[in-house]
Amino acid sequence: MRGRRGPWLFTPGPINTSDATKRAMLRDFGSRDSDFIEMTARVCKRLLEIADAGQDHVCVPLQGSGTFAVEAALGTLLPHAGKALVLVNGVYGRRMAQICNIIDRDCAVLETEEHVPPTAAQVEAALEADPHVTHVAVVHCETTAGILNPLADIAAVVAKAGRRLLVDAMSTFGLLSLDSAKLNYDAVMASSNKCLEGVPGMGFVIVRKAALDQCAGNAPSLSLDLHDQRRFMEGTGQWRFTPPTHVVAALDKALEEYLEAGGRPAREARYRRNCDVLVKGMRALGFETLLPDTLQAPVIVTFLSPADPNYDFGRFYEGLRGRGYAIYPGRLAAVDSFRVGCIGALGEAEMQELVEAVREVVAEMGIENCGRSGH
Amino acid sequence: MRGRRGPWLFTPGPINTSDATKRAMLRDFGSRDSDFIEMTARVCKRLLEIADAGQDHVCVPLQGSGTFAVEAALGTLLPHAGKALVLVNGVYGRRMAQICNIIDRDCAVLETEEHVPPTAAQVEAALEADPHVTHVAVVHCETTAGILNPLADIAAVVAKAGRRLLVDAMSTFGLLSLDSAKLNYDAVMASSNKCLEGVPGMGFVIVRKAALDQCAGNAPSLSLDLHDQRRFMEGTGQWRFTPPTHVVAALDKALEEYLEAGGRPAREARYRRNCDVLVKGMRALGFETLLPDTLQAPVIVTFLSPADPNYDFGRFYEGLRGRGYAIYPGRLAAVDSFRVGCIGALGEAEMQELVEAVREVVAEMGIENCGRSGH
Repeated sequence: MRGRRGPWLFTPGPINTSDATKRAMLRDFGSRDSDFIEMTARVCKRLLEIADAGQDHVCVPLQGSGTFAVEAALGTLLPHAGKALVLVNGVYGRRMAQICNIIDRDCAVLETEEHVPPTAAQVEAALEADPHVTHVAVVHCETTAGILNPLADIAAVVAKAGRRLLVDAMSTFGLLSLDSAKLNYDAVMASSNKCLEGVPGMGFVIVRKAALDQCAGNAPSLSLDLHDQRRFMEGTGQWRFTPPTHVVAALDKALEEYLEAGGRPAREARYRRNCDVLVKGMRALGFETLLPDTLQAPVIVTFLSPADPNYDFGRFYEGLRGRGYAIYPGRLAAVDSFRVGCIGALGEAEMQELVEAVREVVAEMGIENCGRSGH
Repeated sequence: MRGRRGPWLFTPGPINTSDATKRAMLRDFGSRDSDFIEMTARVCKRLLEIADAGQDHVCVPLQGSGTFAVEAALGTLLPHAGKALVLVNGVYGRRMAQICNIIDRDCAVLETEEHVPPTAAQVEAALEADPHVTHVAVVHCETTAGILNPLADIAAVVAKAGRRLLVDAMSTFGLLSLDSAKLNYDAVMASSNKCLEGVPGMGFVIVRKAALDQCAGNAPSLSLDLHDQRRFMEGTGQWRFTPPTHVVAALDKALEEYLEAGGRPAREARYRRNCDVLVKGMRALGFETLLPDTLQAPVIVTFLSPADPNYDFGRFYEGLRGRGYAIYPGRLAAVDSFRVGCIGALGEAEMQELVEAVREVVAEMGIENCGRSGH
């Protein structure tokens, strides 16, 4: 049955979704029909509530992947004369800096190693040293290592310095608190298919109205212009360009299930349990995590590749894949690793099954020592 | 049953899709998993075949709506020092010119009225008059009026003048011939959810390899960079950023059904029959079409609003909607109209049902004369 329907996904996304979420796609919607207009409004309202965003923020959905939403936020909100300070400790921070370069927005980078979060003191010093910086862009959970960056502390120094904050919350939206009153952000970028457990195909940006209002004509793209998208939606309730109607319907259902299951606290509790079961189980097999538990977000865990000469990622992956479990390769520059996600429609039982499958594959491959320190 | 599952869509998209196409979305795919890599390759191969594109072209899929694919093609293929001549006789031509302005590419416009196709002679003269034009951009079927532009004739003069051709074939791909050898285009832009009858959420561009190869670093966007998307795909078989996996699965199934049903000739025959049944039925009720039959693409038909004082589009729409049929408002600047699509998973029976519903609604509204000429 798993073989037929595809493997369980232990990845940072696309993730497993519930059957009810997928069944919500068994209907065609007219994008300018009242049913769909109501659905879009309901989805946006719920996303704002989940973000704890008040009346001064608006939710702007956008077609495409999360990166499209990030690029749209940077392109729309960074003024031509502005300058971004991008905090980089992995692929997604680096990607924001790359976007700034491509769309011709001035940009400085504060880089730390992939297993090291930037500190608020470093950000404070960087802002003090460079008065041209107007915006700070930070990734909440950098899934490259799976690290949780200290968003609240960073937000405090950004606000104190009178700069604006843009948060890539792709893999934490709906999981961790993003209280707009405390974080005082101009924009939070996220997508349908991470912790909200919708299917991939749309992103969204929770954006401060007062900031967005100043951005008419700012975006260097038509498709990725959040100001224009919002203006059109406010007037008509419709998306500017053809929306991914089935993806929106799936997110609508996923949000209903999210709220029925107990909202953010319940989601956080489940993912933390998933993460705990995974980390404990893998450590019991001898595996080592890259990060100490204090830096680990309950999203995706990086395990160091065993030093044992019998270990080979390709064979390890295929062994698990053959048993119906898809994991992720590592993405660290410095050290050989692999990653296992704990988000999506997964619970304790699936995490335990995965650990058991790892035990089998390790035995099959003749790996005697799963630790890194063996070498 | 129709009420429960939503209305039949007589629109230019999103369109009705088959149940099998929607059921293909009842599985989650890992975007870096071999199953999905194979599916992406199969979809791209079939799209190239449907386009009659030879070995010198490649299919680059892209997340988002059709407009995202159009913007990506313009941004990637128009060099900074290039200049586009955009043929405009409706919303989508105008949108291409708008994109050129936003992404800072030089652009001239050759505009004709919305019910008038540009002629090859006009294009030839414009190219002769402006040697700076490097690319001509044309919409194959402009759904604003439903008009078919004379693509083959235009392609011939563009080739003769040594310029490059970019074709927005959003609503004709899979329906009308786009033979790359004859049309000699650099790019054809289309999407998953028009005549191919997939669900919305991805576009694609059939692009000449030799042209794309010259475009590294050209795009003013990361997300909408077709060169980068193709380079990554060639290396890995994967999309650069999270793909809309369920949308791709639906398109894969829709393409299978498309080929099984007889491919392009069968699709064209069905849509032409749909269009004929619609136009004949509506004319029998007294309605007038905007276009003469020779200019009408079998995609979407613009009907002139009845001059009868009892006619009101809102009530007309709701009367049909209440019976389970969604039509589209008109989009002409000059004349009051409405539109009825004849693409998607619809056949003769549905077209006849729609005409019957129109007859009922017209009677209910007390409209005695459905013609425009009454006034």
